[in-house]
Amino acid sequence: MPTIGVIICSQRTPRAGLHIGTSIWNDLQATDAVRTNAVTLALVDLQKWNLPMYDEPDIPSQIHSSGQYLHPHTQRWSEEIASHSAFVFVTPQYNWGYPASVKNAIDYLYHEWKGKPAMIVSYGGHGGGKAAEQLKQVLHGVRMRPVERTVGLTFPNKETLKIAAEGRELDLSFWERERREVVEVFGEMIQLLEGL
Amino acid sequence: MPTIGVIICSQRTPRAGLHIGTSIWNDLQATDAVRTNAVTLALVDLQKWNLPMYDEPDIPSQIHSSGQYLHPHTQRWSEEIASHSAFVFVTPQYNWGYPASVKNAIDYLYHEWKGKPAMIVSYGGHGGGKAAEQLKQVLHGVRMRPVERTVGLTFPNKETLKIAAEGRELDLSFWERERREVVEVFGEMIQLLEGL
Repeated sequence: MPTIGVIICSQRTPRAGLHIGTSIWNDLQATDAVRTNAVTLALVDLQKWNLPMYDEPDIPSQIHSSGQYLHPHTQRWSEEIASHSAFVFVTPQYNWGYPASVKNAIDYLYHEWKGKPAMIVSYGGHGGGKAAEQLKQVLHGVRMRPVERTVGLTFPNKETLKIAAEGRELDLSFWERERREVVEVFGEMIQLLEGL
Repeated sequence: MPTIGVIICSQRTPRAGLHIGTSIWNDLQATDAVRTNAVTLALVDLQKWNLPMYDEPDIPSQIHSSGQYLHPHTQRWSEEIASHSAFVFVTPQYNWGYPASVKNAIDYLYHEWKGKPAMIVSYGGHGGGKAAEQLKQVLHGVRMRPVERTVGLTFPNKETLKIAAEGRELDLSFWERERREVVEVFGEMIQLLEGL
């Protein structure tokens, strides 16, 4: 059974990412694809991985098995990503781009990502659309198959943005429409998985 | 006298960045602005800084002095960037985007960057133009004033790309035209500095 990695792309402390990612995870657990066991979800939290800044001597596109990487953390990361069939990236926007944490995690590998479907959910004061577009370009760069449509979660006001930035829990019911959209886009991504 | 920080954006080992950045540095040393002491150049090598993955608890745009940062490395980085008046970013392209190293270094700060002129020189198998465009968007995000034109350095063949990726020294004379363009764009950036 294919597993779908839900990647929490932020890793600073405090962060809104885990709370938002967990809400999306719960929404996706209720989808037909997951309830019927056609796919299962796996949480991939970059804060737990806490990868050091990229420092492998060889070019990832030249590497075809995890044992060829120099560092044990790269070997484990390679095995983690190789084990999933598609990915949901849940990312904040920092300064109109993606956070270094997710770019670093992507740049470690190549064939582990290549050919796999992906989707992007961004969040921020304006929904994080710029980060989502930049990240989609990077996913094309590692030859993934990102769904064209991305979903942006815009904090409704400065107060909720502040609460989120401080890592405090929020009632995310204000994103009811957007969360339905996440489920729709997830359906489109699942259709990209062959042989289901 | 204003100083211009030449930022070597790559920090992996081996890397082509220091060699390319040093060549650009030498070209810029020969410009009128530097020879007449209107400005001086300062090398900012992200490999030497080796900043950990961003982990400050507060939002950089809310911070107005280096003493308000939690970590000593952030305080030192804040003082470094605050001390320069403009920046030349010399960056590789990884997977159609900027490396995590430079995004991480940018995201640590805000007011230290704000309002300052900048220019981007990218390099890669196809010149790194996608990374340059993404990075320019991020520089706008921190309210810098990047010169519109970026310069891309394309390795002329796979052999030179391989030598560069292995960190071996290259005769960069094949970029004579592009290096003249770097000097031109540097002139445009210097004009953005007020009061010269």
